[in-house]
Amino acid sequence: MPALARGVSVIRIAVDCMGGDFGPAVTVPACAAFAAACPQAQLLLVGQPQALAALPAALSPDRCRVVPASEVVTMDDPVEVALRRKKDSSMRVAIAQVKDGAADVAVSAGNTGALMAIARYVLKTLDGIDRPAIATQLPNAAGGATTVLDLGANVDCSAEHLLQFALMGSALVAAGGRDNPSVGLLNIGEEVIKGNEVIKRAGQLLREAAARGLLNFYGNVEGNDIFKGTTDIVVCDGFVGNVALKTSEGLASMIGAFLREEFSRGWYARAVAAAAWPVLMRLKRRVDHRRYNGAALLGLRGLVFKSHGAADVFAFEQALRRAYDAAHAGLLDRVQHRIAPTLAWLQTMPVAPSPACP
Amino acid sequence: MPALARGVSVIRIAVDCMGGDFGPAVTVPACAAFAAACPQAQLLLVGQPQALAALPAALSPDRCRVVPASEVVTMDDPVEVALRRKKDSSMRVAIAQVKDGAADVAVSAGNTGALMAIARYVLKTLDGIDRPAIATQLPNAAGGATTVLDLGANVDCSAEHLLQFALMGSALVAAGGRDNPSVGLLNIGEEVIKGNEVIKRAGQLLREAAARGLLNFYGNVEGNDIFKGTTDIVVCDGFVGNVALKTSEGLASMIGAFLREEFSRGWYARAVAAAAWPVLMRLKRRVDHRRYNGAALLGLRGLVFKSHGAADVFAFEQALRRAYDAAHAGLLDRVQHRIAPTLAWLQTMPVAPSPACP
Repeated sequence: MPALARGVSVIRIAVDCMGGDFGPAVTVPACAAFAAACPQAQLLLVGQPQALAALPAALSPDRCRVVPASEVVTMDDPVEVALRRKKDSSMRVAIAQVKDGAADVAVSAGNTGALMAIARYVLKTLDGIDRPAIATQLPNAAGGATTVLDLGANVDCSAEHLLQFALMGSALVAAGGRDNPSVGLLNIGEEVIKGNEVIKRAGQLLREAAARGLLNFYGNVEGNDIFKGTTDIVVCDGFVGNVALKTSEGLASMIGAFLREEFSRGWYARAVAAAAWPVLMRLKRRVDHRRYNGAALLGLRGLVFKSHGAADVFAFEQALRRAYDAAHAGLLDRVQHRIAPTLAWLQTMPVAPSPACP
Repeated sequence: MPALARGVSVIRIAVDCMGGDFGPAVTVPACAAFAAACPQAQLLLVGQPQALAALPAALSPDRCRVVPASEVVTMDDPVEVALRRKKDSSMRVAIAQVKDGAADVAVSAGNTGALMAIARYVLKTLDGIDRPAIATQLPNAAGGATTVLDLGANVDCSAEHLLQFALMGSALVAAGGRDNPSVGLLNIGEEVIKGNEVIKRAGQLLREAAARGLLNFYGNVEGNDIFKGTTDIVVCDGFVGNVALKTSEGLASMIGAFLREEFSRGWYARAVAAAAWPVLMRLKRRVDHRRYNGAALLGLRGLVFKSHGAADVFAFEQALRRAYDAAHAGLLDRVQHRIAPTLAWLQTMPVAPSPACP
């Protein structure tokens, strides 16, 4: 895999080709499409060599290299199995490429819990970060996207964790080109007095961080603000974020199913559906969650992106693009720079206090 | 307000006519429509007499009676103000009608926090219930509705609270005619080992309750299962439930806005929209959240229903119908019967332990 043309900054992506519901059947064609679309990308295809023996033409040796890994973390593997017994898994080898400096970012569609645990074990967390978080984007009615974190890495968060998420989310969105992005704290009402003790204290910390010029805190937001686009970033604990995300997926699926049913109920509806096809396709494109595939694991000493396990070729390619863009924008340095001025302040805080025992 | 025809069981509904974003402008026409549609209902219209001076013909003196209340709880009133300073509010007087036996159920579109606090203060909780919960129905892809509780009454729940919610939800759904309804515990994965300590312990308690024949526990469910209709009931703490509900409202609004935009983008889309109108209206009807308006406050020694504050006449009428049906089905007795055999067992449990300090 020789260097590309001089002057072009190459981004090297380590891809866990075995991960996800479909493994190489999805990851390899997605890598080929991405390689064709993005000449500055170089790909390290990590997986069992026999599964990666026949590669599409776009994945020529000057654009990619196969990195062998003998094991596969399945979607059902407990974290302990993935971490302790499968030391040569494609997931772990892909992350090790980042650790070793052979890749700028790793992408996997595998088991989220295993990915987070392995990434944390191999890469370690950044100074000032107790727990990494998972951040994704959701489309909003304002025509942009709202970045939400955490989405399930952390099920019991303290106020200090939520502050760290806000700082990391700010770095992520700023890396995407949005200066001074606004942060909302997900709550059950806009008033400062709403919520449980953890949320109230997180509100205090975020206001203090804003007063210190460390981030742009909007205040409390509610569930509907995610899709309204009230703020650029919405911060919440992983349990709440995961439920909000999956509830949204469930509702979108239901509305999609109802749309299909109503537009196929009788000859009139079917005729109208044919006429409405271009309009319905535009609508579908706007709410297509595949376009937003690719969640960032933030707070680690290396970049890792997570694709949805059920991603198809188009969706996995979006995750590759997102990983590429983040590496290209120097996300890792940006997170570190965002955290650095807060380190002295963060160190005065209690370490991971129990949520209900302040 | 004389008795109706002999042999017909009359249900008396106390309506907080001043509550909600629109007060009597919505509540009075909704009461009139409901009175016309439901001959067995008698209505106690609670509010400022001048606001209820001119009533529609359907609200004739044999069907309704005005109960004066001099004060109004506003949507912004802190709970303390509503509870301690506005002792003659329409909300409180409506609930007092239930307490005094003058009404079978009360309905209000007012401030949720104030309604819960006043209802709890005036009516008290049932034996075996530490905290009342708010339960609502959401449409699901299976063609039915999923009952979700709690929706914001309780922001820090213990495992014991979640068990109580499951029992009360089972009574509510059974009152609606569904025998042995299934209960899902909202979590971030289906596996028993998922979730935080509170959720894991709640899972244990629910499995034990199922083994004792007290309810029909399905197991863990995820956010998408709410709209899939995997179980009849989904149990969660109020913070999570509130975020899930409001996130869904936000997504539904966004998709609705995108539909309107796409069907009005250019002459072709507008022409198609005209043709597709009946189909789009059928779709709208299926996902119309107004049809599901009317949340039950469960666990009190009296029935209280909460309407969405922004309800229009149609939506408020649905809340009245839901309150009527619950009273007609003997919901209060059903909840008590569901709780009674668990009392000895519940009393062996710690009272409201802190979530993170088991």
